[in-house]
Amino acid sequence: MTVNDPPTSRTRITRLAEKAVDDRAVLDDLLDSNLVAHVGLAAEAGPVVVATAYVRHGDRLLLHGSTGSGWMRRLADGIPACVAVTEINGLVVARSAFESSVHYRSAVLFGSFTRLEDAEHEAALDLIVEGLLPGRAVEVRRSTAKELAATLVLAMPIVEWSLKVSDGWPEDEPSDVAGPAWAGVVPLHVNHGTPRPAPDLAPGIPVPASVRALVGEDPALQA
Amino acid sequence: MTVNDPPTSRTRITRLAEKAVDDRAVLDDLLDSNLVAHVGLAAEAGPVVVATAYVRHGDRLLLHGSTGSGWMRRLADGIPACVAVTEINGLVVARSAFESSVHYRSAVLFGSFTRLEDAEHEAALDLIVEGLLPGRAVEVRRSTAKELAATLVLAMPIVEWSLKVSDGWPEDEPSDVAGPAWAGVVPLHVNHGTPRPAPDLAPGIPVPASVRALVGEDPALQA
Repeated sequence: MTVNDPPTSRTRITRLAEKAVDDRAVLDDLLDSNLVAHVGLAAEAGPVVVATAYVRHGDRLLLHGSTGSGWMRRLADGIPACVAVTEINGLVVARSAFESSVHYRSAVLFGSFTRLEDAEHEAALDLIVEGLLPGRAVEVRRSTAKELAATLVLAMPIVEWSLKVSDGWPEDEPSDVAGPAWAGVVPLHVNHGTPRPAPDLAPGIPVPASVRALVGEDPALQA
Repeated sequence: MTVNDPPTSRTRITRLAEKAVDDRAVLDDLLDSNLVAHVGLAAEAGPVVVATAYVRHGDRLLLHGSTGSGWMRRLADGIPACVAVTEINGLVVARSAFESSVHYRSAVLFGSFTRLEDAEHEAALDLIVEGLLPGRAVEVRRSTAKELAATLVLAMPIVEWSLKVSDGWPEDEPSDVAGPAWAGVVPLHVNHGTPRPAPDLAPGIPVPASVRALVGEDPALQA
């Protein structure tokens, strides 16, 4: 277990501190279970938040984007950044408005990005494809020099972070527990639907192993 | 149709501009279909991004939190804020890494918050409960004066925003379309699981109408 210790002034959790988790393995599980992060950076007029795909690789978070993207280029300059990865896993239906909430895992990471070059750049793009769909990188052709040149890949070390996990039952007051209102949790799950082939897919090309592994046994894929 | 016109320098979409949507009804549908926003604000050491529940009420976005929350209090001071609401609806499995992407609806709103007081404060808390679980506000007791005093409610006008929607097929090069790789879309859906009663729920309290309406027909609820 790697812990985020000691917390810094901005990773010390002060609200609902009992939900703070300092187990790096839980952070990694959250990061590896999700596709999209929200990246905060400062612009002239104020803060900007951008949603973008990411992948964790060891102790680094990797982003990619177009070399034409203004916010990617600003991040590449090494300005301070904040990355949030959030997962909502259920509704906590409490007996009062005050205790109503959600189940979540929520990580916030601070740091700055550097641009990856050459072989590291190309390898990172494979990792990003694998992050979206494990097994896909070997199913597609290699990127062309033109595609690589059009893509920025940025890496941020996972050093300064905080994590909160909410997964408990409603914590109602005894007077509410004795009352008439229902309480419980409604789980929320993300599910994959049946893969839909592109309209221009040539006949006879089967659904690939990566997609089959993702969606599991799907009777519609036997057709 | 209300449009966000003209765009400002920070809401004019420059990358993948063909995905920009300026239809306010689409923005409202996105905002009304999701529970959690990512709010960016500036702190001394740099930008901070916080995930938090929100609800749209007409032309305003409402947040709530503890009066003890540092970031809520800074927002209440009217500092510049950026709010991102993002929904991931599928994986775009293209024939190349370069064209691989996701289906999404992604809104970014800029502005600043003001604190709601008194009757507006209390009404907003009902709206926030309703945002998490429609129909719930009338099923729970009214908030106490102590609970109201512990809660900050902030509102930001929906004025300066941008929206991107990605919902198309992979856009592969003709040479890739002629090649051997599969292409298509794997939909992603958020589903509700069977509601789980709290361990301290008194016998005989039925699953309420709000939860039944949310999860639809669920055989497990007939037990």
